[in-house]
Amino acid sequence: WYSTPLRSGVPGMDEILARIVAPLPTYETRDKSPPPPESNSLEFMHFYNGLLKEDKLSFLNKLSQDFGVDHRGVSELALKLLDTQLRDLATILQAEDRLRYSLTPRYKQLFNHISKAEGGVKFLVDLRADVLEIISSKASESPDIRDLNGTLKSLLCEWFSVGLLRLERITWKSPCEVLQKISQYEAVHPIRNWADLKRRVGPYRRCYAFTHAAMPGEPLVVLHVALTEDISDNIQSIVREFTTLQSTEDVNKINSAIFYSITSTQPGLQGVELGNYLIKRVVRELQSEFPQMAQFSSLSPIPGFCTWLQGLLGQYRKERCHPDLLSEQEWREVELATECLGSRPGMPATEALRKLIGTGEWMHSELLSRVLEPVLMRLCAWYLYGEKRRGSALNPVANFHLQNGATMWRINWLADTSPRGVANSCGIMVNYRYFLNDTSKNSALYLQNKVVTASEQVLGLVSQFQKNSKL
Amino acid sequence: WYSTPLRSGVPGMDEILARIVAPLPTYETRDKSPPPPESNSLEFMHFYNGLLKEDKLSFLNKLSQDFGVDHRGVSELALKLLDTQLRDLATILQAEDRLRYSLTPRYKQLFNHISKAEGGVKFLVDLRADVLEIISSKASESPDIRDLNGTLKSLLCEWFSVGLLRLERITWKSPCEVLQKISQYEAVHPIRNWADLKRRVGPYRRCYAFTHAAMPGEPLVVLHVALTEDISDNIQSIVREFTTLQSTEDVNKINSAIFYSITSTQPGLQGVELGNYLIKRVVRELQSEFPQMAQFSSLSPIPGFCTWLQGLLGQYRKERCHPDLLSEQEWREVELATECLGSRPGMPATEALRKLIGTGEWMHSELLSRVLEPVLMRLCAWYLYGEKRRGSALNPVANFHLQNGATMWRINWLADTSPRGVANSCGIMVNYRYFLNDTSKNSALYLQNKVVTASEQVLGLVSQFQKNSKL
Amino acid sequence: WYSTPLRSGVPGMDEILARIVAPLPTYETRDKSPPPPESNSLEFMHFYNGLLKEDKLSFLNKLSQDFGVDHRGVSELALKLLDTQLRDLATILQAEDRLRYSLTPRYKQLFNHISKAEGGVKFLVDLRADVLEIISSKASESPDIRDLNGTLKSLLCEWFSVGLLRLERITWKSPCEVLQKISQYEAVHPIRNWADLKRRVGPYRRCYAFTHAAMPGEPLVVLHVALTEDISDNIQSIVREFTTLQSTEDVNKINSAIFYSITSTQPGLQGVELGNYLIKRVVRELQSEFPQMAQFSSLSPIPGFCTWLQGLLGQYRKERCHPDLLSEQEWREVELATECLGSRPGMPATEALRKLIGTGEWMHSELLSRVLEPVLMRLCAWYLYGEKRRGSALNPVANFHLQNGATMWRINWLADTSPRGVANSCGIMVNYRYFLNDTSKNSALYLQNKVVTASEQVLGLVSQFQKNSKL
Amino acid sequence: WYSTPLRSGVPGMDEILARIVAPLPTYETRDKSPPPPESNSLEFMHFYNGLLKEDKLSFLNKLSQDFGVDHRGVSELALKLLDTQLRDLATILQAEDRLRYSLTPRYKQLFNHISKAEGGVKFLVDLRADVLEIISSKASESPDIRDLNGTLKSLLCEWFSVGLLRLERITWKSPCEVLQKISQYEAVHPIRNWADLKRRVGPYRRCYAFTHAAMPGEPLVVLHVALTEDISDNIQSIVREFTTLQSTEDVNKINSAIFYSITSTQPGLQGVELGNYLIKRVVRELQSEFPQMAQFSSLSPIPGFCTWLQGLLGQYRKERCHPDLLSEQEWREVELATECLGSRPGMPATEALRKLIGTGEWMHSELLSRVLEPVLMRLCAWYLYGEKRRGSALNPVANFHLQNGATMWRINWLADTSPRGVANSCGIMVNYRYFLNDTSKNSALYLQNKVVTASEQVLGLVSQFQKNSKL
Repeated sequence: WYSTPLRSGVPGMDEILARIVAPLPTYETRDKSPPPPESNSLEFMHFYNGLLKEDKLSFLNKLSQDFGVDHRGVSELALKLLDTQLRDLATILQAEDRLRYSLTPRYKQLFNHISKAEGGVKFLVDLRADVLEIISSKASESPDIRDLNGTLKSLLCEWFSVGLLRLERITWKSPCEVLQKISQYEAVHPIRNWADLKRRVGPYRRCYAFTHAAMPGEPLVVLHVALTEDISDNIQSIVREFTTLQSTEDVNKINSAIFYSITSTQPGLQGVELGNYLIKRVVRELQSEFPQMAQFSSLSPIPGFCTWLQGLLGQYRKERCHPDLLSEQEWREVELATECLGSRPGMPATEALRKLIGTGEWMHSELLSRVLEPVLMRLCAWYLYGEKRRGSALNPVANFHLQNGATMWRINWLADTSPRGVANSCGIMVNYRYFLNDTSKNSALYLQNKVVTASEQVLGLVSQFQKNSKL
Repeated sequence: WYSTPLRSGVPGMDEILARIVAPLPTYETRDKSPPPPESNSLEFMHFYNGLLKEDKLSFLNKLSQDFGVDHRGVSELALKLLDTQLRDLATILQAEDRLRYSLTPRYKQLFNHISKAEGGVKFLVDLRADVLEIISSKASESPDIRDLNGTLKSLLCEWFSVGLLRLERITWKSPCEVLQKISQYEAVHPIRNWADLKRRVGPYRRCYAFTHAAMPGEPLVVLHVALTEDISDNIQSIVREFTTLQSTEDVNKINSAIFYSITSTQPGLQGVELGNYLIKRVVRELQSEFPQMAQFSSLSPIPGFCTWLQGLLGQYRKERCHPDLLSEQEWREVELATECLGSRPGMPATEALRKLIGTGEWMHSELLSRVLEPVLMRLCAWYLYGEKRRGSALNPVANFHLQNGATMWRINWLADTSPRGVANSCGIMVNYRYFLNDTSKNSALYLQNKVVTASEQVLGLVSQFQKNSKL
Repeated sequence: WYSTPLRSGVPGMDEILARIVAPLPTYETRDKSPPPPESNSLEFMHFYNGLLKEDKLSFLNKLSQDFGVDHRGVSELALKLLDTQLRDLATILQAEDRLRYSLTPRYKQLFNHISKAEGGVKFLVDLRADVLEIISSKASESPDIRDLNGTLKSLLCEWFSVGLLRLERITWKSPCEVLQKISQYEAVHPIRNWADLKRRVGPYRRCYAFTHAAMPGEPLVVLHVALTEDISDNIQSIVREFTTLQSTEDVNKINSAIFYSITSTQPGLQGVELGNYLIKRVVRELQSEFPQMAQFSSLSPIPGFCTWLQGLLGQYRKERCHPDLLSEQEWREVELATECLGSRPGMPATEALRKLIGTGEWMHSELLSRVLEPVLMRLCAWYLYGEKRRGSALNPVANFHLQNGATMWRINWLADTSPRGVANSCGIMVNYRYFLNDTSKNSALYLQNKVVTASEQVLGLVSQFQKNSKL
Repeated sequence: WYSTPLRSGVPGMDEILARIVAPLPTYETRDKSPPPPESNSLEFMHFYNGLLKEDKLSFLNKLSQDFGVDHRGVSELALKLLDTQLRDLATILQAEDRLRYSLTPRYKQLFNHISKAEGGVKFLVDLRADVLEIISSKASESPDIRDLNGTLKSLLCEWFSVGLLRLERITWKSPCEVLQKISQYEAVHPIRNWADLKRRVGPYRRCYAFTHAAMPGEPLVVLHVALTEDISDNIQSIVREFTTLQSTEDVNKINSAIFYSITSTQPGLQGVELGNYLIKRVVRELQSEFPQMAQFSSLSPIPGFCTWLQGLLGQYRKERCHPDLLSEQEWREVELATECLGSRPGMPATEALRKLIGTGEWMHSELLSRVLEPVLMRLCAWYLYGEKRRGSALNPVANFHLQNGATMWRINWLADTSPRGVANSCGIMVNYRYFLNDTSKNSALYLQNKVVTASEQVLGLVSQFQKNSKL
């Protein structure tokens, strides 16, 4: 992105900003200022879209620095507010309201106008994606950019409030345009071709999306559901199952809804809660379609597990300490098994294990698979349950479902045997189960007290891990 | 409404409020608090809707007083902000953001959650209608209620932003449900029966409305348009014209779009700009349907003109001064003409005039009509052009169109001869014309400098008035 | 219609017919003739629609006489066919096919082309309505007109085949245009105003119609259904019931579907089976919406009962015989009761009864009502069950439901107390019940063997009648 | 298909036929027979669909032989008709009507009932496809099968009458299901992938289809149109052009509509005119979208040209005569050029030419291409213009457009350089141009008098051919 040195500015940038980002009206005239002509917004959008990436950065820097809050004005009103503290309530409220108004960045008003223009909301969503990339890539560390991001986020939160979203069920009769997007956006279990796609919207499957009036034809968050008898422990049985593609659904075989993929499509809507609401809305939808349905669960990937494990093993090697992740017995079995596979004898067991995990070779050896299963299962349980960052689960998928109030329900061996699944998480997947009566409580416990609700199976694996390891 | 003494409170009110209107999360945890269950919002809505009017008042009073802004917290943060003034930008921005957050009333958060529930947005629109009625009826003069109103208004402004509205053309093929509402809401030229309604959506007519995704089937603001050769000077030729009802539109006869009625249907959306945007959107729509169309104008009623005139005449009588609204010659003619009509001789001319205007009798006398025309036309021109309140046109319809940037273009004699038209404005109506290239400029001039743009005809009448009167 | 003497012909009629009604192509070129330009069809339609009624008659006479079948050609081919009887099958089949082709009236081809033009199908439906009126009013007794009618009917039967019809449920959200038509077409229980109409499409009601792709927005046959606990015995409890208008349907209170009105809207589709199919389709629709629903029944008017009864009584009077419709005891009670009501004493009982029935006065006297109930009920049962015309039930509504395979299930006293109901059928109505397993069998029995399936109640009343009367 | 010896019959076949294909009601009761239960039709459909191909043949043979017309009945009525010739008109008409009725095959009635069942129309379309295959593969030469085909065709003609068809424009927003079918059905210029498909419904392209109410989601005939400045002479510039895929259409660049592919999707609708009507309907649609559009033309393939040419050359070889298709000069040039290309010297020129055309090698040699152009162009012109079968153009595409009234307008060299295009027609394509004022006249001339309307270019090439050849 920002590798080239910043240019001094694109011709016209200052002029455009000065002309189009109007000053805030005074507090008194705030309801009386005529809206600027829509052409202003269109001109702004057009200008921005025409910029090169590096120019966008300098443009956003300028916008956020020079067209934000008037700090002097704010401090004056803060002082005035303090002066009114002993006055009557009406005076205090007025002072507060003036102060609140003065805290509005000048560009917020512009964004409001842009949102009214055709394509304006989508423009702002994409603008925020740029801002987020600037922040995460550290292309700019200006606090003003952070403020700009905060303003955009709170506006987008208003506009993408759930009351304004529309649930759409996607089927093979949906517009091609939409289905193609569904296909492109699917990142969890990539859709390889149109037959594959047809399967995901066919019998015993459901695909739902939220769309928004201001961004027609654009699915914002997509949830794929499989309708099954039991809670699935294997993803291939869902995404590679074509035998029922032509059949009619037998309602008696449908007891469970498995959320096997959820994708947010708009980077610019990061932090705007959509997925949570979509799952809840879909549960309601499914309950009304299948009144007897009682089991709701995800079948989720565990991105990062292998990376985490490799990191751990690497550290052991560096520190040359005796790794207690496996019992002596287990280490021996690993050594033996890898030697059988033709590994260089004498290679340290940690090394052998790292290599095995790195290549995914173990998958093809029944022996190794049997040896590794208990080890990887308890390591994975710990990774999901015990590894935290600032009190939240380190694994982002776990964090998402735990925030929603799900229970960490079952860890499944050989659940995703695709190369991708083996490479990411040694083929392990996890069910986060939604017990509808408990989600509110679980969610609050997790968010406020960092408590992870988990099943006996998961807790058992965790405690096995803890017995072995001093991690 | 609020005639009975306030009751001490409905059982459960305090409990409900305390339980459902959650405290603001701390600044640090603001993105981490789980949303409350939707049942909270539904319970709140159900409880409020079940209250009697007087209980609603006390409920809203409580809500606004006890669940608003934490004033102490605000003043502490204001102090902190002042302390950071010499610190680095990031610190200042943080302090501002905390202050901004602290200025959020606690109930705002509740409203946000309610908006996500089914029927929630409509509930808040209606809640605000209650708040507005409390304020305008002076049932409560609490400044907190005013703050509550301000918060609601700004939320509604976000949600009813133009980008989220959908333009719908209403035709005879629109759902019956919608057409019935169109009929009920029409206040300017009431629709008497379904034949009447069919006319208003038939050939040479257009009916447009904005609707909103969160309030399906509910037209928010409705604009009726007649497609004519020339700019209409008479409303009966529009709403009582049935000869072309079965015909096919002849595009060659369509040069003008006459906006003959615009109605906002939701009292709770007062102050949320919709009508202005609807007119502009419709102009674009019509231009794309009729590329050659060049004339856009309203044909507007003048509510309040007779009342204003009666007030003026009444004042003259009280002050027993010689009214200079009419020339000597004109007064004589009025006296003569009324005597012809059988009026009690010797009645003072002002009295006679008041009575004439009050009853609308003059309409049936060609003589009187001829005598009164110049008088009433110049008085009306003045009323529209010259009478102001806090710098805005006193007449609300004039104020609306002038804010939109229209020109006060033509005042029309015998333009609305219905009893209602005669009683409200002596049958006079006015065209506010939209010259599309000038509306932005006009709007700014009017809103900022209080300048009314008017045609030669109007200015001529105004100056005649000014020559006669010392008003 | 045809009161004025036929004019000698509208200018251009012969020319138009000769030009537009093309001769049949020869058998050999029948698949090779290019279709005439659509403008031909439009010209024909325009010309016909512009004719006065009497000119339409002479036009249709000409069309049917001069542009029908070539009789000479037919007889030649018939002769040829006879000559081929000893030849091989292929030759015979060919001769038959040529004969079949020669039996096509020339105008049939024109109708086929018209059906393809915009509005063409509706034109032909209306044309047939004209033809039917000519036949029934005996304005023309030409056998050619009858042939024309037969040709039109068989074409319409093809085009309005059930596979081409669309079932639409009409609700308050249906287009106003459609609801207005539903209202206008309803002849059985007239809809008085829009509130009334809203009721008929509101909760606990269903309104279904068949529409056709070639006549969009035009309901062809309309069925009104009430959803009730028990099989209704009173129509006012359906069409005058407004208490549940705002309520939500409680599925537990819905056991029965009462077909309380069915209306064919197109006179030109007489004889084209639609109502029968609509009822069956609606039954399927309701079964899928209410799987537990078990009772399907009409609540039907008995048009013609009073007229028939009056005729009977009139005949008795003329023949001065002693009427055995009532027992001695009953006659006495009628005389007594009518005298109580202030009738001229000495008036013959038959006279008194005729008058009572004519005015509907008896309704207001509890005494008379009690006296008349058994009498009128058994007379009505006989009228419905026993009175036939060419083997079919004389009463057209009975004939319709019996053809469909319904059972004559219950005759209801005081079932329609509207003036219309009293005047037509002394307030009596009848339920034709659809036992879904029996309708095929019943229908065949009725159509082929003239057997009317009826309940015990009906048969009981019929046998009471037969004991009294020698009719 | 029918290679295995016919089995003696599937169990139940006779029983099913006898039970379900009811006898015709008598003439008198023809309007009184109740329709059979829908289950009959469903059973018939189910039974037939379950049959193996060879059993279908024997089933259809039985159906057509044993359940057709009652020949004896027909001949009796034919005799009666002859007897009535001297009687009154009404008697004659009656006799004709009875005769007409008796000519109805018994199975026609069954088909009528099937058409009313769900999926029934599609079933009959597919049934006719089977019948057509039987006839064309000569699996059966029974005249009864031919009669069955005729009956089916005339029924389908009624049901697929243009008034019952719906024009749909297919876009990228159309249901995926439909677009996938469009892709599969496209036979003229196969669609390779979804990007390809997106192109064909994108800017400067139109894709239209007729659908039918009884076969929802099934395009019956599909027309692809390119919107261009000039009349295209090359297909790759249409189907391989992706530069304007993202652009907005510039109406000023659109003067011509090029029909570059038309496909009938239902073999069972052979002979049911759809394509002709679709082209005319699309022309109207385009004229209303682009009022200034003046040029309508196909860009059509010439299937069969190479085959025809190879046949011709083969014949020359066999007859060892001196082929006069090319002039001496041209033959020499061919020989020379092929030798340059490394051909075996001394090979006869006809042989060399055959080989060249067979392999398509000449395309890669500029020299050969230059040599062959005049030769192949005039041969192709003759093939299209002069080669006839029973008076119609031998080439089916030419026959289709000439029937529609198009003019054979321009033969284009190197117009389809795809392997398929080179193999089928030496890369040549032809424009059939639609001069809207002349199509009726042209169509009639062609169909009735076998006159082909062609442009100067085409006629010039034809006369060059005729000068050379004595064909």
